[in-house]
Amino acid sequence: MDVNRERLESDLRATAEFGAVPAAEGLGRTVLTGTTADRRAREFLCERLRDAGLDVRVDEVGNVVGRWCPGSADPDAGAVATGSHLDSVPEGGIFDGPLGVYAGLEAVRALQEAGVEPSRPVEVVSFTEEEGQRFGGGLIGSGVAVGDLSLDDALSIEDDGGIPLGDALADIGYRGEGRLDASEWDAWLEVHVEQSGRLVDAGVPAGVVTSIVGLTRCHVEIVGEADHAGTTSMAERADALAAAGEFVVDVEAATDGRPEVLDTAVATVGRLTVSPNAPNVIPGSVELTVDVRDVDYGSIEAITDAARESLSRLERERPVETTFDHAWDRRPVEMSPRLRGALRDAGEAEGVGTLDLHSGAGHDTMHVARVTDTALLFAPSVDGVSHNPREWTEWEDCAAVTRVLARAIADVATE
Amino acid sequence: MDVNRERLESDLRATAEFGAVPAAEGLGRTVLTGTTADRRAREFLCERLRDAGLDVRVDEVGNVVGRWCPGSADPDAGAVATGSHLDSVPEGGIFDGPLGVYAGLEAVRALQEAGVEPSRPVEVVSFTEEEGQRFGGGLIGSGVAVGDLSLDDALSIEDDGGIPLGDALADIGYRGEGRLDASEWDAWLEVHVEQSGRLVDAGVPAGVVTSIVGLTRCHVEIVGEADHAGTTSMAERADALAAAGEFVVDVEAATDGRPEVLDTAVATVGRLTVSPNAPNVIPGSVELTVDVRDVDYGSIEAITDAARESLSRLERERPVETTFDHAWDRRPVEMSPRLRGALRDAGEAEGVGTLDLHSGAGHDTMHVARVTDTALLFAPSVDGVSHNPREWTEWEDCAAVTRVLARAIADVATE
Repeated sequence: MDVNRERLESDLRATAEFGAVPAAEGLGRTVLTGTTADRRAREFLCERLRDAGLDVRVDEVGNVVGRWCPGSADPDAGAVATGSHLDSVPEGGIFDGPLGVYAGLEAVRALQEAGVEPSRPVEVVSFTEEEGQRFGGGLIGSGVAVGDLSLDDALSIEDDGGIPLGDALADIGYRGEGRLDASEWDAWLEVHVEQSGRLVDAGVPAGVVTSIVGLTRCHVEIVGEADHAGTTSMAERADALAAAGEFVVDVEAATDGRPEVLDTAVATVGRLTVSPNAPNVIPGSVELTVDVRDVDYGSIEAITDAARESLSRLERERPVETTFDHAWDRRPVEMSPRLRGALRDAGEAEGVGTLDLHSGAGHDTMHVARVTDTALLFAPSVDGVSHNPREWTEWEDCAAVTRVLARAIADVATE
Repeated sequence: MDVNRERLESDLRATAEFGAVPAAEGLGRTVLTGTTADRRAREFLCERLRDAGLDVRVDEVGNVVGRWCPGSADPDAGAVATGSHLDSVPEGGIFDGPLGVYAGLEAVRALQEAGVEPSRPVEVVSFTEEEGQRFGGGLIGSGVAVGDLSLDDALSIEDDGGIPLGDALADIGYRGEGRLDASEWDAWLEVHVEQSGRLVDAGVPAGVVTSIVGLTRCHVEIVGEADHAGTTSMAERADALAAAGEFVVDVEAATDGRPEVLDTAVATVGRLTVSPNAPNVIPGSVELTVDVRDVDYGSIEAITDAARESLSRLERERPVETTFDHAWDRRPVEMSPRLRGALRDAGEAEGVGTLDLHSGAGHDTMHVARVTDTALLFAPSVDGVSHNPREWTEWEDCAAVTRVLARAIADVATE
């Protein structure tokens, strides 16, 4: 399958200009939903979709869909859909999101140029507010498309300034009509940068995701007693931060050496705040978050159990009280064996090596997997860096995964 | 020595009204330097001093001095001075500071009523801005009185709103003239609440301070790499907070089990901030403070050495870099054997038990000790609580330490 590497690079470099930010190294961009940068990125995409002869529609939550339904295709058949998102984190990179959208479009253009005659329509999609940097917690467009989030609820989500998502989309002309319904799709295939270093380490240009990790988020509070750092002897103290220090070490250690915990498990105390947080006052309380992810829910449970045990031990050994709030859970999601097989076969046919791996991040695919068969194809991230202007994927690798995607879509859409 | 407990209580309760704040338990007050509450507390003190026949003067940094120089006293002899401060922390208690000022005044009144004829003048002092809650780092009035801080520098210290201390004092009518010179004193004796629980635990009403602890303050930075909490395997991480957790535990442990470290040593990580501090991002860097105090500088050094060793170990064992900034040092200060003896003898003569102990906090006495003989006498703090409306000292104990103070002043001023 011939893919036009220069055209793909040109589309991505053009997209990188919208919301571009200066960076000491690499190429940075800030594209928050409903901003001018977002509008320009969307306009450019719609032009490119139309240039390729796709029918463009925008749903009420701003999801953009370009549909290719040539004469060979049954317009009533479930589409094979592909895509990702165009928004970014503040000062993010240029590949996270746009690569999946433009790999999808380039795949369609490659199919067209190769004379492929699909029996199903093919759709190229850009979902709204994947990153959740301005509105809500992210994955909003795909949440609406799978019915997890109602249109009304999504459109009412306000940014920090009280502006609802619906108004922000209307302001830039991207509050469309109706609701994209992902459950009508026969298949969904998303290309995304890996955001870690496994593909580069293995020297393999394409990663076929086996499953997306589950995630458990916990909120912990450790309460001791704030006291004078000079006049309170060590024996008299109830130092919440000293207890929290032990807890942080315990959480890290819980990922290693337990039979139920897999090698793929990760656990992170990412946020920790101390009160009153003054150099001469013994910390009275500490609040912190624990983020646990793995491909197996039993493995996640074993780590959260270890975290609870650590708190119980601290309460026994120190004059502190603790609370453990299991804030929310997201179960691990398996990718479709049919589509994983299609991607592996496509890699073989194209001479592009593939590696099976899991995804530590959710992506829109995690939502779509609730309603149809899905697959996720990773491109290598140089140094594993992402959400940073140093995020980079070699153009050769962008083209390679696009070839795999195009071949897989051709197979799936003509079955 | 007869002390009028009701009069002392009445003065302290009147002072507690200025800047009084509602409190669920106890009596709270907020008296920041240069505020209306400060002005009223100073006015009330000056009236009480004049009522007792003392000559009142105010120096340019607002230190208030009431001088009793009866016919028996040589006006050119170095005075025996006593006192403390009237300012408070926000929502502080009613004893921290005022007890020392009014115990001093009550002691003079008791000497007068007992017909004591001192050969030296006796001065009752209230130092400006001990707490350092509005201006600078505290101990400002005593810093000027010992020449550690120039008048010009002190008066130029600005609050967060850019108002200089000199203007704030002028606004309330307490920017006086000249400079109180503590080096002219023969002796300085300060009564203060203990702010910890040793006297209550021992059932002893008066603590004779042997030395004021030295203090070393260090700033530590631990730098790893911020990364995605889902896509970065445990092996790939450079988690600054996991390293900091070990460090906090090491600092606490360094106060125990080393031969150079005394039982009196305390070490506190009071402030710790995580960056970027997001639940789904591996902490990229942590900044924290280490506060180490002991009566012996070698003991302090052994703990800071252990902290440095901990950082070196973390750099060897983890992919983090650390910096250790020894921000400042305050050496331990010995109290005068002559005045400690006078306080112990006075306790014995008055039938008030005394306990030798060290002070974990600095107090104005720490400054005055640079230029003359000093002593510090502690009154018991119920539950060891201070800087809080629950700060409390029984009135009986207030009277007991005042009797000890009065007897000691009588002895020292008539030698």
